[in-house]
Amino acid sequence: MTTRTASTFAPPVMEARRWLDGVSHPADRPLINVSQAAPVDPPPAPLRAAMAEALELTETHLYGPVLGLPELRAELAVQWCAHYGGAVAADEVAITAGCNQAFAAVITALCTEGDEVILPTPWYFNHKMWLDMAGVRAVPLSTGPDLLPDAAAARALVTPRTRAIALVTPNNPGGVEYPAATLRAFADLAAETGLRLIVDETYRDFDSRAAPPHDLLRDGVGAPLIQLYSFSKAYRLTGHRVGAVIAEAPLLAEIEKFLDTVAICAPQLGQRAALWGLQNLGPWLAGERAEILDRRAAIAENMPKLEAQGWRLLGVGAYFAYLQHPFADSAADLAPRLVREAGVLALPGTMFMPAGDDRGARQFRIAFANVDRTGIGALFDRLAALDWPLASPDRPA
Amino acid sequence: MTTRTASTFAPPVMEARRWLDGVSHPADRPLINVSQAAPVDPPPAPLRAAMAEALELTETHLYGPVLGLPELRAELAVQWCAHYGGAVAADEVAITAGCNQAFAAVITALCTEGDEVILPTPWYFNHKMWLDMAGVRAVPLSTGPDLLPDAAAARALVTPRTRAIALVTPNNPGGVEYPAATLRAFADLAAETGLRLIVDETYRDFDSRAAPPHDLLRDGVGAPLIQLYSFSKAYRLTGHRVGAVIAEAPLLAEIEKFLDTVAICAPQLGQRAALWGLQNLGPWLAGERAEILDRRAAIAENMPKLEAQGWRLLGVGAYFAYLQHPFADSAADLAPRLVREAGVLALPGTMFMPAGDDRGARQFRIAFANVDRTGIGALFDRLAALDWPLASPDRPA
Repeated sequence: MTTRTASTFAPPVMEARRWLDGVSHPADRPLINVSQAAPVDPPPAPLRAAMAEALELTETHLYGPVLGLPELRAELAVQWCAHYGGAVAADEVAITAGCNQAFAAVITALCTEGDEVILPTPWYFNHKMWLDMAGVRAVPLSTGPDLLPDAAAARALVTPRTRAIALVTPNNPGGVEYPAATLRAFADLAAETGLRLIVDETYRDFDSRAAPPHDLLRDGVGAPLIQLYSFSKAYRLTGHRVGAVIAEAPLLAEIEKFLDTVAICAPQLGQRAALWGLQNLGPWLAGERAEILDRRAAIAENMPKLEAQGWRLLGVGAYFAYLQHPFADSAADLAPRLVREAGVLALPGTMFMPAGDDRGARQFRIAFANVDRTGIGALFDRLAALDWPLASPDRPA
Repeated sequence: MTTRTASTFAPPVMEARRWLDGVSHPADRPLINVSQAAPVDPPPAPLRAAMAEALELTETHLYGPVLGLPELRAELAVQWCAHYGGAVAADEVAITAGCNQAFAAVITALCTEGDEVILPTPWYFNHKMWLDMAGVRAVPLSTGPDLLPDAAAARALVTPRTRAIALVTPNNPGGVEYPAATLRAFADLAAETGLRLIVDETYRDFDSRAAPPHDLLRDGVGAPLIQLYSFSKAYRLTGHRVGAVIAEAPLLAEIEKFLDTVAICAPQLGQRAALWGLQNLGPWLAGERAEILDRRAAIAENMPKLEAQGWRLLGVGAYFAYLQHPFADSAADLAPRLVREAGVLALPGTMFMPAGDDRGARQFRIAFANVDRTGIGALFDRLAALDWPLASPDRPA
């Protein structure tokens, strides 16, 4: 029987968790888990205290408006304007139960059966999964060794069924921060061809650049730009499910139909926590960002010992390093062995690639945000010590 | 441009909220809001205290397994067995972010573009909305004056594209509790025709019957039965978004793909609250049920004054009374007037009917759970006092 779910694959993160089953890790070599892009610590104590207070409000326990808490929509609009230099109104912000839901809602409002959406590869697997289940064809846009998508190459993929191009910056899984000029080129392409440009900025709070990452919002909210955001990483709220869509109000009225039907509303406590975070945790978040940037620096500093073994760093930024390994076997087969033999859980590049694209077999995503400098050193030592058979030196990269 | 959201209507509850805009209610005649099936009080204090404690656990703030907190799945399985007399294992329970999401997940796992699902009318509008957005045709199964669906009539609607029949008992919007024999007849039909029978039991905790509402689970988890549940009403957790699907593990593996992509996981605090409720609030919930049943009795006691004005009670049970009004105009037009002229917000039957089915124009849903005996008396006095033009007496019911 054909069903929508049968048209896609099982959640990669859950599959990776199963590789841990039955594997014990010696005390002197504990598991290093770099598989999931999620904080492992709770929100800071003042935010937890604010959440406990919010539990005393009756409204925290009741349904709220489908498109979100009005105060949160307003506060995000104000801060969004400040960050990007543009004019965003509260009714141009919708709150979702996480950024995955934001993407699903946007696609449902833009597409129907048989439509197409262009995704650079390597792609974020949940984007691919939702497109599959929505009956929308994910059109892969291959990137070069720098992992940056090229708007001219995308133009050649546009057909009458194309509805949108979806970018993730800083990129998951690639780590790369897309230059402002890249985003501008894609916005121009979208505007010229009547497409929407979806920009998922889940990791924007950990961008290394001081300047705004793009100036697309200076053109105003609305076509072609649709922005997605997550409160999960910035304030450590993954368990509370809060994200956002920034788009013109008529599109949000369409999105409201989807959210009403799959969510009714985003969790009310999470929304209040996100609001408190926006209002109070700016300096704290700056410290978090500095720590992530220091870990990113540690990745760079540790790379020589891996490069000596034939590894290459393809991209690094925000939560991710994207590595090319030197071994003969596919990363898909090596990943479970990595758990057993090195005590490292990382996702293979095959999870981020279309079937038939062989590049993924040579790649691993390292979600390093939860690993401190010492841990990064240990991780790289373990990877450098792997003595698996190497690929033939004349295999193309 | 055709999109999935364009194929359906705007959320009725949000539309109804807009009827309140600009309307003021005199102090001696406050608004009586019987539009939404949701508690208006917070969870009981001990549950709020348990939730505050849960905020001190790190795991409450982190992603959890896609299919839910293992302890919650296990506890629901145990209590489900006790309630229905069957054998349910923890891995036959999935936790969702509310029961709407449970329905969406099940449909996505059962259907694809162009498939059909049979829904008795009046139907629950979010079910119709999701089927629209999923590209699945909602096939209306008309009910008679008792609002009960007939399995023989459903049989005539089955086509090669039919995948499921979805029932809601106690019914939203009709209030009626489906007899066990009705459910058995539908299960037999589903088994014979290879369909799945989805039974949404969101309001089961307020069923007036002492005995289990059906014995379908005695046949075991799996085809044809799929049960849906919500923790929202029982424990006043609407703002925390927790529901469940009870089905065989292989189907839940399909559902896991959908949940991973639109939710990642149900909110962790809500899941812990639901678990605490299941473990500790049985006696409290029995009191809540007794109160709802008393309000239902008040509906019956107040009906004579409405019947004298030509109204009829079509169904009553759990949170809902479903009424037929005597007026010439459509309930769709009368509902906003009801706000302005009587200070009553109720949803018209047209919101629960397919286009072209005229019955809805004569019906209102009264979600009475939040209105005590005094309020129910006041509500019925206001309705009985309406002096709008009556329908011609020879109009068919």
